[in-house]
Amino acid sequence: MSIPENILNNVKVVLVNPMIGGNLGAVCRAINNNGITDLAVVDPRPDMDMGEAEKLACNARPQLAARKEYATLAEAVAGCTVVAGTSARTGFYRDTSYTPREFAPIALESAKDHKIALVFGREDKGLFNEELALCTHIIQIPSSDLYTSLNLSHAVYVCCYEMFCAAGVFQPSEETAPEADSELRERMFSLWREMMTETQFVHDQKLDHMMMGLRRIFTRGKLTVPDVKILMGLAKQSIWVSTQWKKEKHDELP
Amino acid sequence: MSIPENILNNVKVVLVNPMIGGNLGAVCRAINNNGITDLAVVDPRPDMDMGEAEKLACNARPQLAARKEYATLAEAVAGCTVVAGTSARTGFYRDTSYTPREFAPIALESAKDHKIALVFGREDKGLFNEELALCTHIIQIPSSDLYTSLNLSHAVYVCCYEMFCAAGVFQPSEETAPEADSELRERMFSLWREMMTETQFVHDQKLDHMMMGLRRIFTRGKLTVPDVKILMGLAKQSIWVSTQWKKEKHDELP
Repeated sequence: MSIPENILNNVKVVLVNPMIGGNLGAVCRAINNNGITDLAVVDPRPDMDMGEAEKLACNARPQLAARKEYATLAEAVAGCTVVAGTSARTGFYRDTSYTPREFAPIALESAKDHKIALVFGREDKGLFNEELALCTHIIQIPSSDLYTSLNLSHAVYVCCYEMFCAAGVFQPSEETAPEADSELRERMFSLWREMMTETQFVHDQKLDHMMMGLRRIFTRGKLTVPDVKILMGLAKQSIWVSTQWKKEKHDELP
Repeated sequence: MSIPENILNNVKVVLVNPMIGGNLGAVCRAINNNGITDLAVVDPRPDMDMGEAEKLACNARPQLAARKEYATLAEAVAGCTVVAGTSARTGFYRDTSYTPREFAPIALESAKDHKIALVFGREDKGLFNEELALCTHIIQIPSSDLYTSLNLSHAVYVCCYEMFCAAGVFQPSEETAPEADSELRERMFSLWREMMTETQFVHDQKLDHMMMGLRRIFTRGKLTVPDVKILMGLAKQSIWVSTQWKKEKHDELP
């Protein structure tokens, strides 16, 4: 599937009747980290601590201010094709559920042309059955059997993270230094061989064995050109010091 | 790779010099959700709000109480083979980084026989270079270019979540009802055909076309035996009502 830029603009995060201001703020940050900005709150509690919400939102305060409020979930998701509700419980047709990773490509397929919604319930009671009835998909977040209850912002984070990863917009930072080629590598190994004999670290009969060990150590991962230059510089310096030392020892001879 | 049970017991989460009690509590919950229990705090701040930590830990308070404290990162990771530091920045050899998803199988391979560590820095300044120097791997969490700064507990959550997913211990809840077979499905379609004619919904020449539409609607996803029974019951009832209605109309005739 080719993914249009800005597809994540079509993803709407909907919090139903949340209680804790800090969670609302942390949710703003979680969606922003994952390229999502459309936030709706259904039936917000009038006594929510909005100072705490602003504190936890950090630099995502503009998203907090831009949130939309709705009286009912039906109104919040009215324009959405796919509507996915999250649930930790089973039963009431929740058995046919998707993990966030399974769900993400399904949702993105619709989000190419339509708004889609990710719906999260109350901190204490989750989504009610009549709210789950409005959902086309149910998402179950993988968690330990011993501890299935997630913090609201963690649940939002992981669902948005899977959407973000599936959208394929993230480019991990790559090693920019060029990889060393065999010719450069062999120049390095020949300097290290010289260092080992010059410093009298090994005797001749052990040298090949030791060199093989060093080759294994240094080729276990990729070596870049700057890596090899550090290693060559170190060997050269050691060789130089050994030469000086031998010269001085010789000069000191009576 | 076959993964031994309890492999996640060998994963140690290390927070370096965290500031905010609420984050420490939320971290306890995040690691517990993902089957991880070993938590270390390096150089904890004496003024941390532990009441807030307990509040955010929720049912993970035992993990909060069981945390280990160390004066330095070197002591906290001394027994660990793989030591992975998280960083949002680039530079200082951070370019060769892993995403949490790339890193998880590498870490689990070591965790079969050894303790491994996931290391997270301060909320405001992350890990210092001398701390990153102790790390064998650097993890960069995918995030929007526009907003790369993650809440500490979100960063911990996503790294532990990827370890949990890679460990393969999670079994999503499966549909327990048996899937309907063709014979049952065809009995249903034949009742729906009867309902359409009995209720005079369609005329004979449209019937085959409409049935094809219904077949497409009902076979777009898997139908279970209880699903088909609901649909059969509905059709039967409609047919019965139509019959009653026609009988009464007939009885009313003068």
